[in-house]
Amino acid sequence: MALLSPSRRLRRTPFSEGVEAQGVSAYTVYNRMLLPTMFESVEADYHHLKQNVQVWDVSCERQVELRGPDAGRLMQMLTPRDLRGMTAGQCYYVPIVDETGGMLNDPVAVKLSEDRWWISIADSDLLLWVKGVANGYRLDVLVDEPDVSPLGIQGPKADDLLERLFGPTVRDIRFFRYGMFDFQGRQLVVARSGYSKQGGFEIYVEGSDIAMPLWDALFAAGEDLNVRAGCPNSIERIESGLLSYGNDMTEHNTPHECGLGKFCNTHTAIGCIGRDALLRVAKEGPVQQIRPIAIDGDALPGCDRAWPLFANGKKVGQVTSAAWSPDHGINVALGMVRMTHWEPGTRLEVETHHVGMRPATVQEKFWN
Amino acid sequence: MALLSPSRRLRRTPFSEGVEAQGVSAYTVYNRMLLPTMFESVEADYHHLKQNVQVWDVSCERQVELRGPDAGRLMQMLTPRDLRGMTAGQCYYVPIVDETGGMLNDPVAVKLSEDRWWISIADSDLLLWVKGVANGYRLDVLVDEPDVSPLGIQGPKADDLLERLFGPTVRDIRFFRYGMFDFQGRQLVVARSGYSKQGGFEIYVEGSDIAMPLWDALFAAGEDLNVRAGCPNSIERIESGLLSYGNDMTEHNTPHECGLGKFCNTHTAIGCIGRDALLRVAKEGPVQQIRPIAIDGDALPGCDRAWPLFANGKKVGQVTSAAWSPDHGINVALGMVRMTHWEPGTRLEVETHHVGMRPATVQEKFWN
Repeated sequence: MALLSPSRRLRRTPFSEGVEAQGVSAYTVYNRMLLPTMFESVEADYHHLKQNVQVWDVSCERQVELRGPDAGRLMQMLTPRDLRGMTAGQCYYVPIVDETGGMLNDPVAVKLSEDRWWISIADSDLLLWVKGVANGYRLDVLVDEPDVSPLGIQGPKADDLLERLFGPTVRDIRFFRYGMFDFQGRQLVVARSGYSKQGGFEIYVEGSDIAMPLWDALFAAGEDLNVRAGCPNSIERIESGLLSYGNDMTEHNTPHECGLGKFCNTHTAIGCIGRDALLRVAKEGPVQQIRPIAIDGDALPGCDRAWPLFANGKKVGQVTSAAWSPDHGINVALGMVRMTHWEPGTRLEVETHHVGMRPATVQEKFWN
Repeated sequence: MALLSPSRRLRRTPFSEGVEAQGVSAYTVYNRMLLPTMFESVEADYHHLKQNVQVWDVSCERQVELRGPDAGRLMQMLTPRDLRGMTAGQCYYVPIVDETGGMLNDPVAVKLSEDRWWISIADSDLLLWVKGVANGYRLDVLVDEPDVSPLGIQGPKADDLLERLFGPTVRDIRFFRYGMFDFQGRQLVVARSGYSKQGGFEIYVEGSDIAMPLWDALFAAGEDLNVRAGCPNSIERIESGLLSYGNDMTEHNTPHECGLGKFCNTHTAIGCIGRDALLRVAKEGPVQQIRPIAIDGDALPGCDRAWPLFANGKKVGQVTSAAWSPDHGINVALGMVRMTHWEPGTRLEVETHHVGMRPATVQEKFWN
């Protein structure tokens, strides 16, 4: 691996100090901000995550805040998911599409009130699209990036840890709901969500000044729970089928190709900018779709570029994320596969970059 | 320095293979793409750049292409620079502003014809802003990212090198003009521009398939010129006063604060979205502005966060880029300074992160 040159342009986070003190060893850059990728090792971090609880600096999930009378209308313009039934207190996973139905982001929308929303974004400057649309349509809404930095609490002991800080009612938060909890006199959104399938929360830390006090309080409270600093884990998230925008899907893909059709209500999402473009694919289905794929042989390196998938020498797709799974003893992968070859059990060949051709099999389900 | 974890999301470039073969040792991420930052060492690269010629993989300067009857109108909506006098064959450095006059990018616009433009962008997803605006205003224009990857040829021997590939007329290209030159039957835009003050060109390589053939041809042709792979050099660019979007300026700054008032014709740039917001600052001037700053003492590490500037204990600005200059024997820096303290010769104190307070002096001019 090459080194990463520091600069102000690769923004530090309100938790960077804590992350460094805990011995971060590798980063990625996400929304022009530092996102840790490794502490002890990706494999050690993975085992720890599945057994304990970790605190994740996911500040890079920047928020796009919509405020004003047209906030709800603008939010619906962005996504083919029908938002009419959504109430304050809920979080929705919302594919965001452009006028061609191409995915621009796959964030979580947090409805704070009728006229105030946060969009907790994946890796693209969604702020610029939303500002451009709001300006062009002359909407009565303020769009900006507030001082909010999400902190993930992930792992089977996440409830135990947060109860010590916020009391027992934190256990009652349902999946993709949130509650308001007090920390040092500040009310914070605490949602049951996060980028793993190990359970846990995301705390939307509003105000950088309380970031390190909260970080320190979590580590002090969780010492006997073996709490550690962690980060989204590439093995666990592939096992769990959690997609990564920029890796597994880009602006060239529709939500349906990404298996996100269940988050689209294209017929009733009136006002969505990409609605017209998506009506046909919503009805007839996509011609390619993301599938779990097992790759034969010993441990592969990560996927730093698309690996073509072949059937009888003909290209039928590509693998975009891959990792060796210690728990399953195979290479787990995600890839986009043409409908002619996406049936579970289909045998394919994948052209890895470093070790040549490997046999691979389309899976029925993810591994978690 | 920490390691950078590879992933498809941090896009490789059509030249990555060549960059790796030449021994790249560090990267940054720029427009979600890999940008080399170091080969031998930042200091060795700097000396080589000033004496020879380097080939830079600046593919990360992605292009936003505007095509269609409204392309020119859209281009003028984006910038307070008056584009009426611009002809095909010219490149303009254009501050891009939002409706508040805040800078969204500082790209080079390339006018290919009346209805076709490229915007060669700095580090922000400008494509999303431009698409949002085009959609909102229902403009008759196609906006996308073409398969174009700029390759920088920088250094005093740049003309010698390119003459060997393109013939003697390449020497006649004037500053911020371009010509069309043939490589393997393909016509390429070759502009006299680039992110150093050592002279040189940028080749807009259209079509990834000819990227490595061109790279190889340049190294074959320039062996006796001591041509090497290089990259934007943090020391040289600070000495030369070349600003870096995301480091020295952000969406919170107007072009005038960044010393880019000379590229604004706010009065006559009719149609510019940020025009109203900029009229006052264009007339009265900004209250803070970027200045060259010399910092006393021995070599400082780079600036990975803003360093506050103080005068008599009061904050009067911040340093955003800094490097030890071997040629000048001082720490050269760029910073935003309040008008009360921006006069050349003003003595200030800068709070560096690693080594505490250092005396500093506002300079009259950059060092190059």
